[in-house]
Amino acid sequence: MTVREIMAVHPRPSSIDQDVLVRCIEECLDCSATCSICADADLAEPDLPDLVKCIRLCLDCADACQATGNILARLTEPDFDVLRTTAQACAEACRASADECERHAAHHEHCRICEEVCRSCESACNEVIAAISAHVG
Amino acid sequence: MTVREIMAVHPRPSSIDQDVLVRCIEECLDCSATCSICADADLAEPDLPDLVKCIRLCLDCADACQATGNILARLTEPDFDVLRTTAQACAEACRASADECERHAAHHEHCRICEEVCRSCESACNEVIAAISAHVG
Amino acid sequence: MTVREIMAVHPRPSSIDQDVLVRCIEECLDCSATCSICADADLAEPDLPDLVKCIRLCLDCADACQATGNILARLTEPDFDVLRTTAQACAEACRASADECERHAAHHEHCRICEEVCRSCESACNEVIAAISAHVG
Amino acid sequence: MTVREIMAVHPRPSSIDQDVLVRCIEECLDCSATCSICADADLAEPDLPDLVKCIRLCLDCADACQATGNILARLTEPDFDVLRTTAQACAEACRASADECERHAAHHEHCRICEEVCRSCESACNEVIAAISAHVG
Repeated sequence: MTVREIMAVHPRPSSIDQDVLVRCIEECLDCSATCSICADADLAEPDLPDLVKCIRLCLDCADACQATGNILARLTEPDFDVLRTTAQACAEACRASADECERHAAHHEHCRICEEVCRSCESACNEVIAAISAHVG
Repeated sequence: MTVREIMAVHPRPSSIDQDVLVRCIEECLDCSATCSICADADLAEPDLPDLVKCIRLCLDCADACQATGNILARLTEPDFDVLRTTAQACAEACRASADECERHAAHHEHCRICEEVCRSCESACNEVIAAISAHVG
Repeated sequence: MTVREIMAVHPRPSSIDQDVLVRCIEECLDCSATCSICADADLAEPDLPDLVKCIRLCLDCADACQATGNILARLTEPDFDVLRTTAQACAEACRASADECERHAAHHEHCRICEEVCRSCESACNEVIAAISAHVG
Repeated sequence: MTVREIMAVHPRPSSIDQDVLVRCIEECLDCSATCSICADADLAEPDLPDLVKCIRLCLDCADACQATGNILARLTEPDFDVLRTTAQACAEACRASADECERHAAHHEHCRICEEVCRSCESACNEVIAAISAHVG
């Protein structure tokens, strides 16, 4: 991933801890792809009717992570209320997707992996929220 | 727009007022496109250096509206905390973009139009948030 | 929809026929939302296992339409090879989604509506491709 | 990145070489984020008026890569004409963005990095196109 490298040469420095920010952007990219693949894997499972909620929440989480990754990646002229509520919505989508994947983790390895990635992205979003609160006061 | 028509034949009825939901989805689609075009129009203006914040917040708003439109359009197995925080983040992105476009509305017609669309989408998001609160309690 | 109105005040005029372009952007927005809703409606149908291909192709089409709407909406410094191949990929995604929805149109009203919207968007993309060819030569 | 790991446990095997596919999905994710950041870095540069084309083509490339990453990540019920034209459009967007970033690479390190990532993603898309041609004949 090139996010850290290109962020480091951005002419405008990050207002919040760049490590926290980069980790969250990378987690959002990874979580968005992982959730898309988990939803698609669900479609190919024999117990598909039990996985409808998992598909829906994984699709939501993929959308939330994609938007959040895009928005957090911009350093120029940020609005911290936008950044904070965006990260909050993403953390919520990750939590919902993780909770549902957890229910299927024992019998579907892709749900076990997806739960783990969602929990990690939720935690990265919460760190960004904390860093914004520390910065804005 | 076909959103209303296809929503009406969805096998799962909407948990919240369908008119409120459809209006918000349509506003998100319109606002996402309008913000993309406003950011692009800014790039072609002679006072481009004064429009950097406008470009950034319009790009954020376009991303937020696209994700929110996608997430609200799903009726199957919703998680209301995801829907509410998503609509809140979108309302915030609309508010930020509208506030900045307002500063340029007198001399750029695209900013005047974009401000209007963002305010309208912000209000539609707030109606969805109220409808979710009324439903979930 | 505000696309036509804000396009009309963009400082850079469209290189290709603005009516053709605006129609395609609007079709892409409508088709993206319609395909998302059709995929979600499929998830709630009792014959879900027969609708897996429909879900997958509708999700592809929603992604293609969203990217194409974004890319066509920019008038500043276009690259016509990018515009043409983007519209071609979108037309293909619309065609595939329409063909599959057609197979379910008799028993699922959302598939009938979605097929219609996809065919209309495919045709709008083909008009853009023709307009680009006429412009670039 | 978790793409390789979750792909490996997907119940439906990939029709084309999984290594080629995974590499392209990862390149699309990386290129989408890198192009978003390059466009945002351009907005903060003193020679912004010279970077308008770079911003526009980076935004196009980010949109194309995001859609392509999503579409290629689905293994269930693929339509190879959709996959091929999608990868072609993405390769074209990467090529256009790389060509423009190359013009600024000597004085903007983010353009130098972005050019490199775009060339690498273009090449990964071309490998996917070749793998699809070999599979479909």
